[in-house]
Amino acid sequence: MTTVNAARLHARLASLARFGALAGGGVTRSCWSAAHEEARAWLLAEIRAAGLTAWVDPAGNVFGGLGAAAFSASAPVVLTGSHIDTVPEGGTLDGALGVLAGLECLHALRDAGERTRRPLVVAAWSDEEGRYGSLFGSRAFCGKLDVAAIPTMAAVDGERLVDAMARAGFDARRAPEALAPSGAVNAYVELHIEQGPRLDEAGVPIAVVDSIVGVRRTRLTFHGQADHAGTTPMDRRRDAFLAAADYALRARALLDRSASRTVANIGVATVHPGVSNIVPGRAELVHEMRSADAHALAGLAEGCETLAREVGQARGIGVEVRRMSVTAPVACSPRVQAAVASSCKQLGLGYTTLYSAAGHDAQNLASVTESGMLFIPSRGGKSHRVDETSDAEAIERGAAVLLRTLLDLAA
Amino acid sequence: MTTVNAARLHARLASLARFGALAGGGVTRSCWSAAHEEARAWLLAEIRAAGLTAWVDPAGNVFGGLGAAAFSASAPVVLTGSHIDTVPEGGTLDGALGVLAGLECLHALRDAGERTRRPLVVAAWSDEEGRYGSLFGSRAFCGKLDVAAIPTMAAVDGERLVDAMARAGFDARRAPEALAPSGAVNAYVELHIEQGPRLDEAGVPIAVVDSIVGVRRTRLTFHGQADHAGTTPMDRRRDAFLAAADYALRARALLDRSASRTVANIGVATVHPGVSNIVPGRAELVHEMRSADAHALAGLAEGCETLAREVGQARGIGVEVRRMSVTAPVACSPRVQAAVASSCKQLGLGYTTLYSAAGHDAQNLASVTESGMLFIPSRGGKSHRVDETSDAEAIERGAAVLLRTLLDLAA
Repeated sequence: MTTVNAARLHARLASLARFGALAGGGVTRSCWSAAHEEARAWLLAEIRAAGLTAWVDPAGNVFGGLGAAAFSASAPVVLTGSHIDTVPEGGTLDGALGVLAGLECLHALRDAGERTRRPLVVAAWSDEEGRYGSLFGSRAFCGKLDVAAIPTMAAVDGERLVDAMARAGFDARRAPEALAPSGAVNAYVELHIEQGPRLDEAGVPIAVVDSIVGVRRTRLTFHGQADHAGTTPMDRRRDAFLAAADYALRARALLDRSASRTVANIGVATVHPGVSNIVPGRAELVHEMRSADAHALAGLAEGCETLAREVGQARGIGVEVRRMSVTAPVACSPRVQAAVASSCKQLGLGYTTLYSAAGHDAQNLASVTESGMLFIPSRGGKSHRVDETSDAEAIERGAAVLLRTLLDLAA
Repeated sequence: MTTVNAARLHARLASLARFGALAGGGVTRSCWSAAHEEARAWLLAEIRAAGLTAWVDPAGNVFGGLGAAAFSASAPVVLTGSHIDTVPEGGTLDGALGVLAGLECLHALRDAGERTRRPLVVAAWSDEEGRYGSLFGSRAFCGKLDVAAIPTMAAVDGERLVDAMARAGFDARRAPEALAPSGAVNAYVELHIEQGPRLDEAGVPIAVVDSIVGVRRTRLTFHGQADHAGTTPMDRRRDAFLAAADYALRARALLDRSASRTVANIGVATVHPGVSNIVPGRAELVHEMRSADAHALAGLAEGCETLAREVGQARGIGVEVRRMSVTAPVACSPRVQAAVASSCKQLGLGYTTLYSAAGHDAQNLASVTESGMLFIPSRGGKSHRVDETSDAEAIERGAAVLLRTLLDLAA
């Protein structure tokens, strides 16, 4: 029975971690950045060195094929993968694990000369973390890009996608050409760290993922009045920051009364003009909400919008609510779930069923194929931080289950 | 009786407003900028054309003397003035009024050949708005510069004072030489727009200023934990932004229970890492507090520090409080107040007594001489904005009261 080469997998994880490495541990490797493009070049070389066929599509997605050199309806492939971009000050496993474990599975099968009925492909999807647009690469692959929006897509700091892609040698307007032919993918399975504490605390090595949360991002702009911070009487001030603060605290209270599989975060807050002696005239928040329950997600979004208007009215502050992005919760494929569970049993590993509280490329793949995921524990539940990690054995168990699952799906 | 030439004063206000003029009204004329240096050259020419003696000191302060060509303890002068620098997107009267009304008073007295016992001098103080350092020129004149800090003084955008002054032809290291000889100034009186709505709403033409607020600026840093915004259970999050928001709202409530002559503002708020899918790990606020009452100011600052620690403790968030700057409230000279009040009575103008909620050069002068101020109304209370204005008649009344006050103080 073919098995993964654990040492090779760990060595590749360590190699990839050097691109965008931070002095205090962790990495910053935003998609299209210099560090990311160096990592892409390294990954393409590793794919070729493993004896696989390497290619890159117009959305910047990187592929490595075993028995495949492109996507076509005439030879449906079983696909695995994840992403090599990271959040700022992120960890070394979020995304990297799924790509490099997938590469290791295909490398091991090629070394062993083991043939599968369906070709296998490993993918590294562009900008999963969404600096310019959430799950960009897999959206392009699955025909879910808003083509008209591409010219205006931009990072929070204002940098435009078209400029970032151009610097990396890509033409953003051609990204929709990454769309895969209908029927070209037979199944998709993605290995990832859980990014939460549930597996780690339960002491269970593997989770079969049954659903992936939907995510809504809303930009709230509070319009007050910039005034002299000394001479304007307190009762006349229309302070946009205080309105934003009031909203943030009350929205949290609203969430606490909401459904259990629902979370929310305000991670972006800016104040204008942003000087100490002027009353804030404008404040902007980005409110992100996630739920495995589509109804609960829509209800929370509606409740927050009403709340923002109430806060604005009570404080004499104008409120603008703009929907930035919406993804629906997704159910994972029963066939993929069964393949992961059966692989765990074959390997004598315990498993449980969880929903994913993070968005993943697998949710886009769900619209074009049978798509699913498996998780390994995140130590201490930590993720999107520089000390994100997992035990070496946990990583090896994840790769082993992925290999069995790919063999099952490709049989 | 000598009177001011209103037409000449309005013409000079209009001329000065052209330096740094913005397309939509108002001006941006930061100290040492090209627009400011052009305005300085224009002002020096106007002083000379008025038959006064013009000079500039090493801190960049511009002076025009009637019966004086320098400062000396042997011939104490009565001094008036304000500043010609502005905040970005500021108005045309903040500072400019006090300088040009002072110039007009001296010009009118010279034209009339009216002699005063003490010489008169009009000043334009450098960088009152504090792009590089609050009240810079008057601090230098009054020996209140932190000489050791000069090499590192810089604007918010990082531009160093030494570079800005060098471009304008000044050597920042020599600014302390602007210190006036002890006893060289007999009294100082400054005319300014109120910058708040109190006079305008009361329909009173003149305010005798009895005190100038002290200002404290404190930086509060809330240290939480950056975590994945989807997978981290809500009850485990240590959200630095929510702690900052909680502090901001409760600090406002604390202020509302504080002394009436006290105001506060949180004009700077930043969140790190500042992306929508990461729980804020750090949030920073700059809290500015102003009071005419030193005891109330210290009490509020102490109360806010206690509050910040309470909020941090309740939320499991570390709190760091750093004092950025402190100026003490200043009482205006009873002799100057009496001279302003008496001038109003002579001219048949109503007046009231107000404290200044903004900082002014007069607060530095108070450490070296008898110092005071008078205000005219700001229309709608607007200031530090491009639509800052006052009625033509209000300006003329202010200049008339200034002339009487200077004659009284110089008699």
